Amino acid sequence: MHTIYQYQEFLSDYLQSQYESKEPKNLYEPIHYILDLGGKRIRPVLTLMAAEVFDTDYKKALPAALAVEVFHNFSLVHDDIMDDAPLRRGQETVHEKWDLNTGILSGDAMLILAYQYFEQYEPVVFRDLAKLFSKTALEVCEGQQWDVDFESRNDVTIPEYLKMIQYKTAVLVAAAMKMGAIIAETSEENANLIYDFGLNLGLAFQLQDDYLDAFGNPETFGKQVGGDIIENKKTYLYLKAMAFSNEEDAAELSRLFSIHPEDSSDKIAVVKALFNTSGASQSTQDAIHDFTFKAFQTLDKMNISAHKKEMLKAFGENLMGRKV
Amino acid sequence: MHTIYQYQEFLSDYLQSQYESKEPKNLYEPIHYILDLGGKRIRPVLTLMAAEVFDTDYKKALPAALAVEVFHNFSLVHDDIMDDAPLRRGQETVHEKWDLNTGILSGDAMLILAYQYFEQYEPVVFRDLAKLFSKTALEVCEGQQWDVDFESRNDVTIPEYLKMIQYKTAVLVAAAMKMGAIIAETSEENANLIYDFGLNLGLAFQLQDDYLDAFGNPETFGKQVGGDIIENKKTYLYLKAMAFSNEEDAAELSRLFSIHPEDSSDKIAVVKALFNTSGASQSTQDAIHDFTFKAFQTLDKMNISAHKKEMLKAFGENLMGRKV
Repeated sequence: MHTIYQYQEFLSDYLQSQYESKEPKNLYEPIHYILDLGGKRIRPVLTLMAAEVFDTDYKKALPAALAVEVFHNFSLVHDDIMDDAPLRRGQETVHEKWDLNTGILSGDAMLILAYQYFEQYEPVVFRDLAKLFSKTALEVCEGQQWDVDFESRNDVTIPEYLKMIQYKTAVLVAAAMKMGAIIAETSEENANLIYDFGLNLGLAFQLQDDYLDAFGNPETFGKQVGGDIIENKKTYLYLKAMAFSNEEDAAELSRLFSIHPEDSSDKIAVVKALFNTSGASQSTQDAIHDFTFKAFQTLDKMNISAHKKEMLKAFGENLMGRKV
Repeated sequence: MHTIYQYQEFLSDYLQSQYESKEPKNLYEPIHYILDLGGKRIRPVLTLMAAEVFDTDYKKALPAALAVEVFHNFSLVHDDIMDDAPLRRGQETVHEKWDLNTGILSGDAMLILAYQYFEQYEPVVFRDLAKLFSKTALEVCEGQQWDVDFESRNDVTIPEYLKMIQYKTAVLVAAAMKMGAIIAETSEENANLIYDFGLNLGLAFQLQDDYLDAFGNPETFGKQVGGDIIENKKTYLYLKAMAFSNEEDAAELSRLFSIHPEDSSDKIAVVKALFNTSGASQSTQDAIHDFTFKAFQTLDKMNISAHKKEMLKAFGENLMGRKV
């Protein structure tokens, strides 16, 4: 097994080795641009790690890992268009740097390129990877659509919200890990268990992202703290606060999530206080804990060495322990 | 073997049988909408026909045929956004009827759905179909990018133009036919020959589309005759006319392809006259004839019965003989 930092290096080297100056430039340059913006590359790291957990050289998993990363970046390019986002990782988004059409078309090409990475595996592994990938990719689209739909709805339930973040975020984490298992040709049971591990960890991770967006340390969080509150995003915190609040507080919260004041500092302060007093903050932390615990429980059932289980647990704790 | 009309019926029935009311509605309704707009469904018909040419029941080819049709409609949805087109087959385009985000996301989902149809084949056939599909889909993206790039260039050559229409249009026709061959598990030689047949027929078809856009019968062509001239689209006719004209005529043609008069009837008349006097019209008809002839030549080498060759030839003649 290797460290996360090592896996990131392997991925970066492999990515660079895959670049060729393909034509037309206006199609491929935006693809290299977004992939080179970097990021933590958590998802492909998980593919490499999972392959090694099931006793297979990470090198064998590099093409699938890159497919996961290219797909993830495809979804960022198209989501950034839909969200009209000017920046991604501190740099211009593709549709800003080029234009709308380039964003659409380069994104489409990335989705196809992702599938092509699987061609390096033999037919049965290829089919298993491509099937899992298609199912996952479609769920990510469905999750994105739920997210869009929820913006104009006032009756979103907690189960609906959890399903949305499961599809939009967690299934890709889960599939990234299962791909490592498929390449390692481990038992179906192990493959399904690592999928569940990734799914629950992905849910915990997204809920923590919701939590840190309001309560994270501005100096280390990376994104603007309070961003979800400014944009009136109905996250887990908001939905729980609405459910737990008395009529008066709920009305106030609902009102605050319908306005866009120029200076949002007062709004953010009041909303955060309501998140705390309603018990929504605690409830969110509980849910994060529960999903993390559920992820670790699946490890017990996995047929791998105790040492490997400790490694996966340490990774999970590291990921969830980010006090940002 | 069956008639084109029968194949269209089989496809329509199969398409309807595949619909289930999937959620979220806002993702899947636009997909059903665009697929139900119909069209001639030439590409999937070719997949069914090719399967039967190589002695395999068309039913076995239905999933792959539908993949081709869903992919083609994906490209229409995204192209209509890029071209800012309000209408498709006389009805509102997806991004007009819904919005930009729906067009992007439903298109993405269709690309993924197309891959899923291949899952109904056993691993080796699945891999061969998916590989051909990915290669083709990427070429279609590249062709679309060339097309966009050419709009702002004044030095496009005839070989570049032919490569663009090959990628944007002909490779999908070719791949649709080769998929039928792959499913029929015919020889690689036959599969490559039917690909070449489709490629050359696709090129002839697109050049004929260019020709008819200027010289077709307004009552039967379906699209607005002169549309390419109005939009200053540098088609084969234009490029050939520029190459054949003296300096004076070329300057006039170039000027006419830089203006957008409110009443375009004079412009259209002058351009068509220049297409004729320069010899571009004749040269385009010659090219159409040459590519059709090349398509028919590949049939000679194909290891199928004379009767089957006649059927494919009749289909090609029918397609190219459209006096619209």
